[in-house]
Amino acid sequence: MAASEVRALFAVASRPEVVSLAGGMPNVSALPLDAIATTMAELVGQRGPVALQYGSAQGDPGLREQICQVMALEGISAHPDDVVVTVGSQQALDLLARIFLNPGDVVVAEAPTYVTAINTFAAYEADVVHVPMDADGLIPEALAETLDRLAAARRAVKFLYTVPTFQNPAGVTLDAARRGRLVEVCRRAGVLVVEDNPYGLLAFDGELHRALRADAPADVVYLGSFSKTLAPGLRVGWALAPPGVRDKLVLAAEAAMLSHSMFTQLVVDRYLATQPWDEQLKVFREMYRDRRDAMLNSLAAEMPAGVTWTRPAGGFFVWVTLPDGIVAKTMLPRAINARVAFVPGTGFYADGNGRSAMRLSYCYPPPDRIRTGVTRLASVVSAELDLVGVFGSTTGHPPKRHAPDAAPDVDLP
Amino acid sequence: MAASEVRALFAVASRPEVVSLAGGMPNVSALPLDAIATTMAELVGQRGPVALQYGSAQGDPGLREQICQVMALEGISAHPDDVVVTVGSQQALDLLARIFLNPGDVVVAEAPTYVTAINTFAAYEADVVHVPMDADGLIPEALAETLDRLAAARRAVKFLYTVPTFQNPAGVTLDAARRGRLVEVCRRAGVLVVEDNPYGLLAFDGELHRALRADAPADVVYLGSFSKTLAPGLRVGWALAPPGVRDKLVLAAEAAMLSHSMFTQLVVDRYLATQPWDEQLKVFREMYRDRRDAMLNSLAAEMPAGVTWTRPAGGFFVWVTLPDGIVAKTMLPRAINARVAFVPGTGFYADGNGRSAMRLSYCYPPPDRIRTGVTRLASVVSAELDLVGVFGSTTGHPPKRHAPDAAPDVDLP
Repeated sequence: MAASEVRALFAVASRPEVVSLAGGMPNVSALPLDAIATTMAELVGQRGPVALQYGSAQGDPGLREQICQVMALEGISAHPDDVVVTVGSQQALDLLARIFLNPGDVVVAEAPTYVTAINTFAAYEADVVHVPMDADGLIPEALAETLDRLAAARRAVKFLYTVPTFQNPAGVTLDAARRGRLVEVCRRAGVLVVEDNPYGLLAFDGELHRALRADAPADVVYLGSFSKTLAPGLRVGWALAPPGVRDKLVLAAEAAMLSHSMFTQLVVDRYLATQPWDEQLKVFREMYRDRRDAMLNSLAAEMPAGVTWTRPAGGFFVWVTLPDGIVAKTMLPRAINARVAFVPGTGFYADGNGRSAMRLSYCYPPPDRIRTGVTRLASVVSAELDLVGVFGSTTGHPPKRHAPDAAPDVDLP
Repeated sequence: MAASEVRALFAVASRPEVVSLAGGMPNVSALPLDAIATTMAELVGQRGPVALQYGSAQGDPGLREQICQVMALEGISAHPDDVVVTVGSQQALDLLARIFLNPGDVVVAEAPTYVTAINTFAAYEADVVHVPMDADGLIPEALAETLDRLAAARRAVKFLYTVPTFQNPAGVTLDAARRGRLVEVCRRAGVLVVEDNPYGLLAFDGELHRALRADAPADVVYLGSFSKTLAPGLRVGWALAPPGVRDKLVLAAEAAMLSHSMFTQLVVDRYLATQPWDEQLKVFREMYRDRRDAMLNSLAAEMPAGVTWTRPAGGFFVWVTLPDGIVAKTMLPRAINARVAFVPGTGFYADGNGRSAMRLSYCYPPPDRIRTGVTRLASVVSAELDLVGVFGSTTGHPPKRHAPDAAPDVDLP
């Protein structure tokens, strides 16, 4: 699609009558807004001249201590000196790309992976090479094969970018038994692991997964964020890195912005220290679990045979694979016309895969809207299937086959 | 100095008994903290779900309208569509460097210039070439000669970086008669102008200077900031750019951080809309003018003959030139030992000049502290002069002469 078409599409998709299953916005309306307002007013009253002043490039020391306590929930033992506060974890990702990537370098990532990460790596002219996942996440043996192949081709692999827990976009989680193996494969190949974990605390059964970083402090750069557990509008994320990388991150952060907002950092610090944020996490978990259930139940009730999807145990996203011949991007305008929006799968691949896949998010609309949206979407898919039955493809061309060496689409039970 | 020495020096310099004339921190204690606390609490109460959510990469449209009204004070007529909100103007500078600079490119800048800009350009492996100033700011004829020389040497000059009004670090202002000429020189050479203007509204006589951008919308990227007129802890700055550059800035901002903090953007928006910020600007102007007066009067009363300095009409900084033979960096540990700190001049040059110069800031300490600091500093300078009288130099070596083609230090009446 041309940029003008995309804009026109988004203009229609943002109308209130369209159910958006496309975005990844957390439902901040569920936050205790009164408590946040009070936190802010107290902060200005008690520490205004500090909160409104410049800070250090590494971030506020008190917040970095609190961040270490947050990471301890997922098994990480870390020192505040090794934390760098960033403008969301996106800035950490961008600074890592700036530090590590030269044109022609390779970043290895799950298939599919976070779309903005692909764009960030592409901005530094690096190539993303995908490694397949199954229902238990990234497949370590496939990772080892990929790294061997890249080494044989003398490609410079700078890091593995992975979202091991409640992945965006696939909604799958790396199995516990695979975690050590994955790090070991990277260690042997001399490849750093970048573990992006914005959703880890949103585990619907409350059982948290042990972070990759927990058992491999020298091999993993861990990225965290308060965007999903508190508020993205504060833009507070962080990186935990081995000292050599940390020093470079601090310098890069200083060059990028001098210092992060002291005010938003201290709001998070005070919120964590004074508010029952464990209770708030439970509220979020239950709310998102109800929405996940609404989506999975609707998919099971409404979708025609041949459509499959993942079953996330946390986070925001379900990955849906459509029968061969349906091209999600081609279907999108018809879906929006039927008042439901999603993100086509190809955006989550650097190699053109994902044509028959789409990402659905259940984080933002309430359950009844989710059900309405899935019902509408199922009708559109059924109509597409009828077309495929008649013409063999919704684009008028025969379905494109993947090249034999390309990573397969995620297609899980 | 080694990094460990610098750290040791800063540790001592930050002790309360040391008068720091080194930093550039605005005096945020003069802000109406109660009004800011109320603004924030109301914002969360009335627009919490928007203020705490993700925003767009370009920044909030309402704030961008307000920014256009702020810029109108300095003669700029602009459309909100051409404004990109950034994490302080430092992020805008970094994004511009990212967009324009390749290794070996040249950025032309005043001699001396803002230290962090030098570091930013160096991070992208560009070379900074200085152009001399006098008491009326950058000398257009010298700029034309420099651009001719660089063109003859087939160097790729990507932009002129200039702080025309109340410059950091020199405290001088580009004369009105030179403004059009400077832009014209750049236009003829096909060189973009980057006008960094964080201090323009802090004019001590209340008479604002016309921005370079006001008369040259197609030739100038203008950088603004609320760090000095409101609070640096909110990290809200902006760039106003011609559409082609603006589009690239929006994409770069998205890659760098997805979006800026909606919360801090909307705090600035609401503050401007509901608070008497014109009155607050007057408070700041009077406060900083008193401090400037305290510094200039103390310098005149205390400094030994042979020391010269600039007379800023706004902003935060005075540039002091010491007699030949005194090396400011060598003098710094002795000054800190005498409980006063400053920034040595060499940091504001990319070419090793500025050895006998120092930047003094009057923005943060109250007037009596400024007087105490200058008195201490004058004693240290006098003692250095005695050493120079005996040994010819404070370093034990004869004073280093500038290379004939190097830009001279700023040495103004």
